[in-house]
Amino acid sequence: MTSAPTHAKGLEGVIAGETEICNVEQTSLIYRGYEIADLAANATFEEVAYLLLVGSKPNADELAKFKADLVAERSLPAPVVEFLKTSGDLVNNQSAVPMDILRTAVSIQAHVDPDCQDNAPEANLRKAKRLLAKIPTIIGHMQNSIEGKDFVAPRDDLSHSANLLYMMTGSEPTPEAEKVMDVSLVLYAEHDYNASTFTSRVITGTLADMHGGVTGAIAALKGKLHGGANEAAMDMLSDIRNDIGPENDTAKITEWMHKAFAEKRKLMGFGHRVYKNGDHRAPILHALGRKAAEARGEEFVKLFDLGETVQKIMEDEKTIYPNVDFPCGMTYFTMGIPVPQYTPIFVASRITGWAAHIMEQHANNRLIRPRVAYTGPALRNWND
Amino acid sequence: MTSAPTHAKGLEGVIAGETEICNVEQTSLIYRGYEIADLAANATFEEVAYLLLVGSKPNADELAKFKADLVAERSLPAPVVEFLKTSGDLVNNQSAVPMDILRTAVSIQAHVDPDCQDNAPEANLRKAKRLLAKIPTIIGHMQNSIEGKDFVAPRDDLSHSANLLYMMTGSEPTPEAEKVMDVSLVLYAEHDYNASTFTSRVITGTLADMHGGVTGAIAALKGKLHGGANEAAMDMLSDIRNDIGPENDTAKITEWMHKAFAEKRKLMGFGHRVYKNGDHRAPILHALGRKAAEARGEEFVKLFDLGETVQKIMEDEKTIYPNVDFPCGMTYFTMGIPVPQYTPIFVASRITGWAAHIMEQHANNRLIRPRVAYTGPALRNWND
Repeated sequence: MTSAPTHAKGLEGVIAGETEICNVEQTSLIYRGYEIADLAANATFEEVAYLLLVGSKPNADELAKFKADLVAERSLPAPVVEFLKTSGDLVNNQSAVPMDILRTAVSIQAHVDPDCQDNAPEANLRKAKRLLAKIPTIIGHMQNSIEGKDFVAPRDDLSHSANLLYMMTGSEPTPEAEKVMDVSLVLYAEHDYNASTFTSRVITGTLADMHGGVTGAIAALKGKLHGGANEAAMDMLSDIRNDIGPENDTAKITEWMHKAFAEKRKLMGFGHRVYKNGDHRAPILHALGRKAAEARGEEFVKLFDLGETVQKIMEDEKTIYPNVDFPCGMTYFTMGIPVPQYTPIFVASRITGWAAHIMEQHANNRLIRPRVAYTGPALRNWND
Repeated sequence: MTSAPTHAKGLEGVIAGETEICNVEQTSLIYRGYEIADLAANATFEEVAYLLLVGSKPNADELAKFKADLVAERSLPAPVVEFLKTSGDLVNNQSAVPMDILRTAVSIQAHVDPDCQDNAPEANLRKAKRLLAKIPTIIGHMQNSIEGKDFVAPRDDLSHSANLLYMMTGSEPTPEAEKVMDVSLVLYAEHDYNASTFTSRVITGTLADMHGGVTGAIAALKGKLHGGANEAAMDMLSDIRNDIGPENDTAKITEWMHKAFAEKRKLMGFGHRVYKNGDHRAPILHALGRKAAEARGEEFVKLFDLGETVQKIMEDEKTIYPNVDFPCGMTYFTMGIPVPQYTPIFVASRITGWAAHIMEQHANNRLIRPRVAYTGPALRNWND
């Protein structure tokens, strides 16, 4: 049985709800009224997190209180620490990837959060702040375990971004590295009904709890058509480098790309369901990442040069533009972050958007339950 | 800023995709061409599971192989067992409910499944069978831990339904109890784009893996507007019993219901997003459950009598009909199953539908990413 299409596949272009949190348009990305270029230039990640979770720009006292609340919640409870001690082996023997570990760690965290079963706004905000504070610690401990190192305790005197980098590496980042990380977290924080956020709303629209919504959102963000694209974009550049050798020979890069086109290989970090003429988060992060590369040395500048050549070929030959995941891959590589942690770092940012959407869903709930067009066999009898 | 509604809230009535797996209509529920009443009367749960996962009714050899595959996969790997040893304390001190434990257990199971990162059809089918086989063991061990008992090993000679009951209780169920459980699992196995299944498709539409999809689906099923309704329905009947005393006084029941109506209390187990004139799974399970109650004794018959009075008041005064969760609550209570395990048992069934949908999503994928209507503040400047 076949039927004519009655719907937009993948809900493309379908309005699935309302939100006060974010508006994605072709030429602008708005978080609660503020444009992303404005926020990237003028706001810290903690300020953006407060904006998303509470709904307004914090004044100095509100911001100080919010930052203190986060710092106080950075440590992990024992069951999460115990699980993370096993994470290095799981990742190193390729049983799991860091996004899987992060999903389980958040699911375990639920079991010891005193507000876990409470969907009231105040309880949800407390849970959101705990998750926001603890996710960098989860990522840091996991990376320490992968490297066979002792866990690094969080530092109370560091910003969210600096502490994240510190816990992963054991070294305090330079102000420049902290700034690049901070801006990347601002850019990644929220993007309306993207697949992971939509997942969190479908889950919590049943009146399930925030930890369940975030666990499912992490599962969704892993996919290479979503958050996993920043890792896939960097993996592609590494593949090209391996194939063409250490120098950026434009002819060889073009040949590599033409072969990929011929093989209909999906090139990650390019194109976007909503943005058809480019993702304007991409040039913001690209410029910062390139500056960081120039400070670090020739190898990293060459990576950006390679990326720019790839980008030009995609734009000229396919009219497909990079999304924010493309410069993110090169930028995090330049900062020395292990590739499989790029998507977990995305989580360290997007937890703010997810939590804001979960709170909005609970505040004005309706079960999200669409219909489907049946294309299966006609009615038949089991005993025939 | 406000805007006129541009969408159906909760995607009500919106066609979100195609499926060959299931068709929910007002008067029929079809699994791959077979009507649910036909399946409930004539097929075992293992046959229905094969039908959903593989796509066709198994012949005798196929069924024997499928059942043997499931039996061989019933044991749990060490990390899941270790986690479940902690589950009794978590549930008993009210830090977690069994649905939370089940979500984490499946997330940990991912880390030791050799096919975890592979989305190919054969790998997905192997993972689906492992999850189907292992979820009853997870539920059984968890219930043993809650009761402070040693874990009961799975029995190779028992059906899926009988083994599930055996592992929870330590006693082999009667053929009648096995049959009631089996039919309930058949009824719960699949229901097109319900919220948890839709969650699993949104997650895996990013090309994330099956375990991620199932973890998110469990998170969604927990909600009392979805799978949690079978527990909530039984809790409501217990509340009524506590309030009216041991006898079924119709005047007192009516008074209780009128008070609930006046307080706009949401009564679980009634109404359905799709079925407007009743869920025809409900009378199938009700009849079986009532028969089990008659075999068990007066206390249980009185429970069904109470439920029937509540149901009549809902139908007469509100024109709202019971869904399958309403008789399920009474039926599982009659079978001696602890209330917080009702929704996990739903998982032991619906894992088949989820896995079938995940395989269908991966086989013909498109990212599920809708748009949203922005109702937040107009553009403003951060530094104003």
